[in-house]
Amino acid sequence: MTGAEPGGWLEAVAGDAPTASRLAEASRLKDMLRVEAAYSRALGAVGQVTPEAAEAAAAAIETAEIDTAKLAREAAEDGMPVPSLSRQLRAAVPEDLQRAVHKGLTSQDVMDTALVLALRDILDDFETRLDRVDAALAKLDDAFGAGPLMARTRMQAALPVTVSDRIALWRRPLPGHRERLAQLRPRLLRLQLGGPVGTRGTFHGQGDAIARHMAGALDLGSPETAWHTDRSPLAELGSWLSMVTGSLGKMGHDIALMSQQGVDAAQLKGGGSSSAMAHKVNPVGAELLVTLARFTAVQLPGLHLALDHEQERSGISWTLEWLVLPPMLIATGAALARAEALPAAIERLGDDGGEKGTRDA
Amino acid sequence: MTGAEPGGWLEAVAGDAPTASRLAEASRLKDMLRVEAAYSRALGAVGQVTPEAAEAAAAAIETAEIDTAKLAREAAEDGMPVPSLSRQLRAAVPEDLQRAVHKGLTSQDVMDTALVLALRDILDDFETRLDRVDAALAKLDDAFGAGPLMARTRMQAALPVTVSDRIALWRRPLPGHRERLAQLRPRLLRLQLGGPVGTRGTFHGQGDAIARHMAGALDLGSPETAWHTDRSPLAELGSWLSMVTGSLGKMGHDIALMSQQGVDAAQLKGGGSSSAMAHKVNPVGAELLVTLARFTAVQLPGLHLALDHEQERSGISWTLEWLVLPPMLIATGAALARAEALPAAIERLGDDGGEKGTRDA
Amino acid sequence: MTGAEPGGWLEAVAGDAPTASRLAEASRLKDMLRVEAAYSRALGAVGQVTPEAAEAAAAAIETAEIDTAKLAREAAEDGMPVPSLSRQLRAAVPEDLQRAVHKGLTSQDVMDTALVLALRDILDDFETRLDRVDAALAKLDDAFGAGPLMARTRMQAALPVTVSDRIALWRRPLPGHRERLAQLRPRLLRLQLGGPVGTRGTFHGQGDAIARHMAGALDLGSPETAWHTDRSPLAELGSWLSMVTGSLGKMGHDIALMSQQGVDAAQLKGGGSSSAMAHKVNPVGAELLVTLARFTAVQLPGLHLALDHEQERSGISWTLEWLVLPPMLIATGAALARAEALPAAIERLGDDGGEKGTRDA
Amino acid sequence: MTGAEPGGWLEAVAGDAPTASRLAEASRLKDMLRVEAAYSRALGAVGQVTPEAAEAAAAAIETAEIDTAKLAREAAEDGMPVPSLSRQLRAAVPEDLQRAVHKGLTSQDVMDTALVLALRDILDDFETRLDRVDAALAKLDDAFGAGPLMARTRMQAALPVTVSDRIALWRRPLPGHRERLAQLRPRLLRLQLGGPVGTRGTFHGQGDAIARHMAGALDLGSPETAWHTDRSPLAELGSWLSMVTGSLGKMGHDIALMSQQGVDAAQLKGGGSSSAMAHKVNPVGAELLVTLARFTAVQLPGLHLALDHEQERSGISWTLEWLVLPPMLIATGAALARAEALPAAIERLGDDGGEKGTRDA
Repeated sequence: MTGAEPGGWLEAVAGDAPTASRLAEASRLKDMLRVEAAYSRALGAVGQVTPEAAEAAAAAIETAEIDTAKLAREAAEDGMPVPSLSRQLRAAVPEDLQRAVHKGLTSQDVMDTALVLALRDILDDFETRLDRVDAALAKLDDAFGAGPLMARTRMQAALPVTVSDRIALWRRPLPGHRERLAQLRPRLLRLQLGGPVGTRGTFHGQGDAIARHMAGALDLGSPETAWHTDRSPLAELGSWLSMVTGSLGKMGHDIALMSQQGVDAAQLKGGGSSSAMAHKVNPVGAELLVTLARFTAVQLPGLHLALDHEQERSGISWTLEWLVLPPMLIATGAALARAEALPAAIERLGDDGGEKGTRDA
Repeated sequence: MTGAEPGGWLEAVAGDAPTASRLAEASRLKDMLRVEAAYSRALGAVGQVTPEAAEAAAAAIETAEIDTAKLAREAAEDGMPVPSLSRQLRAAVPEDLQRAVHKGLTSQDVMDTALVLALRDILDDFETRLDRVDAALAKLDDAFGAGPLMARTRMQAALPVTVSDRIALWRRPLPGHRERLAQLRPRLLRLQLGGPVGTRGTFHGQGDAIARHMAGALDLGSPETAWHTDRSPLAELGSWLSMVTGSLGKMGHDIALMSQQGVDAAQLKGGGSSSAMAHKVNPVGAELLVTLARFTAVQLPGLHLALDHEQERSGISWTLEWLVLPPMLIATGAALARAEALPAAIERLGDDGGEKGTRDA
Repeated sequence: MTGAEPGGWLEAVAGDAPTASRLAEASRLKDMLRVEAAYSRALGAVGQVTPEAAEAAAAAIETAEIDTAKLAREAAEDGMPVPSLSRQLRAAVPEDLQRAVHKGLTSQDVMDTALVLALRDILDDFETRLDRVDAALAKLDDAFGAGPLMARTRMQAALPVTVSDRIALWRRPLPGHRERLAQLRPRLLRLQLGGPVGTRGTFHGQGDAIARHMAGALDLGSPETAWHTDRSPLAELGSWLSMVTGSLGKMGHDIALMSQQGVDAAQLKGGGSSSAMAHKVNPVGAELLVTLARFTAVQLPGLHLALDHEQERSGISWTLEWLVLPPMLIATGAALARAEALPAAIERLGDDGGEKGTRDA
Repeated sequence: MTGAEPGGWLEAVAGDAPTASRLAEASRLKDMLRVEAAYSRALGAVGQVTPEAAEAAAAAIETAEIDTAKLAREAAEDGMPVPSLSRQLRAAVPEDLQRAVHKGLTSQDVMDTALVLALRDILDDFETRLDRVDAALAKLDDAFGAGPLMARTRMQAALPVTVSDRIALWRRPLPGHRERLAQLRPRLLRLQLGGPVGTRGTFHGQGDAIARHMAGALDLGSPETAWHTDRSPLAELGSWLSMVTGSLGKMGHDIALMSQQGVDAAQLKGGGSSSAMAHKVNPVGAELLVTLARFTAVQLPGLHLALDHEQERSGISWTLEWLVLPPMLIATGAALARAEALPAAIERLGDDGGEKGTRDA
């Protein structure tokens, strides 16, 4: 996503295969089936169907072979895959299990909850990666922190500081990002259950109990009401993604500036080769961090415009999220991967003896 | 300032005089003087100057008459007002107080801390207004909640709900916004103190003590290090502003849709007149909520791009914030004002007897 | 207006007084009165009122004293100033001239045509300024073009070129921008005349003739139909503004990079002073060009979202334009002013003898 | 690619297979090989290699089997695929043809020219589709244009017009878009040839002649100098894409509003089914037009920020274009496809006898 094909060169440059894979349609179809199965079992738990029927329906759902070509074909008409999915699921179970499958649910219950399952995994992964970026920077500090560096303000040499002072600027936003993530999770990682118009009116008075059972089974928060028209947790997530990549982008920008000849405050190994100039070592990873920061910043209004989720369901805004959020997640994954690798590629950091770039200060 | 002149028609339509006034240059100049005075007093408290000199300098700063035309003229060269301001302040005190004025500070210490003082007031005001919006909606619910309403999904009549169900959607995001604000405040409302390159190296080893004194005097959080290169709290604030206006925009959009002839689910009084069609009552306030939501969403990348605050100070990114954040604050203030007034302008809400707009459902 | 107050420091840093002044409400009110007067005279020309009545009405309009406080107060209700304006104009003429004033017009006829009048002046000014930027760069080329410069790709020293090669990159986009402007003008600088629903149905069959008379008097293009729901010329204008500032931003970015110590490929005089470091000369003008480029790029979706001008008039989208377009125009004016001044502030350009920044290439 | 997998449900909903296919990496690799082959032949034409060597090299390039896995792996380091591609091409030809392959070119020559080849095909296709949209609307006008419709301004019933008046609003922007496209093409569809630092300095004084030969063979414009640092034609293209989808989005928005129960001014056949409410016919195609318009508007700053192409090559900005432009193209293709299909799905348009939605006007 971010325009990148799995295994292709653009994904290799600016993508993130683990995140892209978690967001692939095959993976998200499994998430949807998990939600449908949890619903069937919850119907059994509250007594709307027998426990046996519930379990049989859930098992059938979990092992159903979905015709994805048909899913796509019908989604083109319906604007989303769930109507086709639920038809296929019903066709996959015997007549007597039909009422244990999807009945009472709405597309947004299935897709929004499935999205949350994917987000949970991705955010767990991102948190681990953020820690690894921080650790890589701590190691870089151990190696080069004591050295001198000419601080620069407004692009101009200012006063001498240490390399450690500069690295501290790169690490400084990270605890805040972890704190924000911890605060965001309970707002975001919640079951969506509302039925067709979000009022839980199609669950025969047992909506809240069904929600508790589903949330328990899926290990999600269980809000008292449907949240499907309140997209603020997704907008907030987008802002968090953009803040993370933005902070990493600042680091990348600094390293690209430090690796300029004449400034000579960073020496990278590897890096990009040029098709025309064999002598060059391009700070590709550093540049990419800036690119990815700009990319996520640009996407952000997409998620915030989608807050205008009119009436009881906005096809307009909901679809906009589908187009904008996955590329943002992948770009953030790519930034974390590049940010983790970049410190290890730094062979020298700081002004060597203060000879260069500092004499004019 | 959303392009609006104080007292002009555009401010009346889409601005918010209280917020604009709090952000006016005269007001922010006072904030800067408060910061400078707090610094002078802190120098006395840590013993760098005598308590008498500190107090005399602070008093001189607080009562200094700043030549704002000169300030503007010199800012054009310097890219910011603080160099001119500090020169004017030094010129305003006797020779022996010079070292109690600004010495050791940098522009970003003054302007960022001053900004935080303004933001604190504005956020206090916004929180109160959010409560009033919620209260106005509660009152609306009391008046019309029991009535029937045809729920609409994807613009189409879906199933009957109550007016109360719809109002609940408008109120639903508000507790989350309050929670986010409470979590954001300690990250945002903090003293900035770093000196020229952010290391507190110009304070003769007393930077931390000076910071504690200043933070105490200004009633701000006192982080252990300068935060001036980590702009994530401002990006986060921008996201919060956009989430608040976005949620109010959804309400505005719903009310504009409900007030369509044929749908007839809301009757507004007042509202806008037309220069050509005397019979119309335009849902101006409702439309404006959508406009303001889009406006703030559009601005958001400005603050997130500014996370790329390269090296020890980025003139590029810092200035970008000055252009983007005030209009976002004013637009949010405008949205809160319109959102508070709108419920009171609703004379009827819901389907009257289900006669209209529902028969085809 | 980029959040800037007339005469204040932010306007001095990042604003443009001539453009801001042309867009001030007092100036735009005059534009609206010109449109109203042209309409009155056109009514006379087609015979709907006598020539004497038409001229008397037009003269009354042109000299009317508008109560702008009242205009603002009523605009808050109506969402725009024209209803109040037309009421005030009608009150300013004798009973027998009433039908020669505004009757048949709609707000969008008045405001959109008035906007076009302001845009015409501003674009004329911008074209002249673009020429001056180009001339300043030609002069810079004369002075320094023959000198050596290390070309840089991906921030790294690449191969030696001349200063002239670099300056050519800055000048390269300018002819394209002029060409685009010439092509844009006939699409943009057109009378808007449609009446309440845009069909020219309120002009007693003389809408086209009235339009020709008005367009002639105002020296505007005269499209065969109203264009008020097709906002693409304004979106196109926004893109042009963003392209111009973007091209100037590239130049600013280059000059900021060249003025780094260690790179030493540009020496600026003047420039910004620092409140803490007297030795520094900050490349404020160069940085500002980057800031302004990012600012206009960020605003662009505002104008493009406004293309969704639903049905016969969208209050939502129309108001969004009012908030977004003026700051873009002012920022472009500011960028042109800074870009014109920057070359004159360059005291040295290029690598002096190839000693610095080039040896590692 | 708007986050969509080939053949998946999201592509079916919001993608456009023809455009996605033209932009697929396999297709773009062929474009790059075409450029490389044209360069080899041009070297022969100007006499730098023998005609036989040139032809042999070109033939080898055109039939080379590129290891795309290796290409991706190496691109991850280099930040782009051309270094690996040129190494693979050189390895594919005998020693004596090496100097007829890529030598003197730079990555940007290959990739930017290849991009232009893809854009030419896509724009040809889009122009044809725009014509088909216009024809479909003309047919719709023939069928329903004479019927009555209540015009709506600011969401409120205004005055009666005809269906034809409304359809005219949808068609109105299309001639302008065609005109803009015709004006844009010569600025965009041009060969990029500059060599490593864009000066044509690596072509032994024959750069201009080589450019003419290549441009002739590829049927592209041949500018006198390299354009690789002037990205304004790509920013302009992005604006055009956003203007086209924006205009179609207005049509979609109108149709979604017209198909509301109570308004009842449009009856769609087919359309989306609901997984929970069998009676509904969702205006999926109409909603999607609005979604796609917002999506492209949001992306636009990405291309305009990339105008800041610093120095002789910006890895940061160039990569940003790769992430932003393809999804915009695909979204525009999707919008054109939906816009062409939508009129045919309209079974009734206009107010039937003025009974509904008009009586309150």
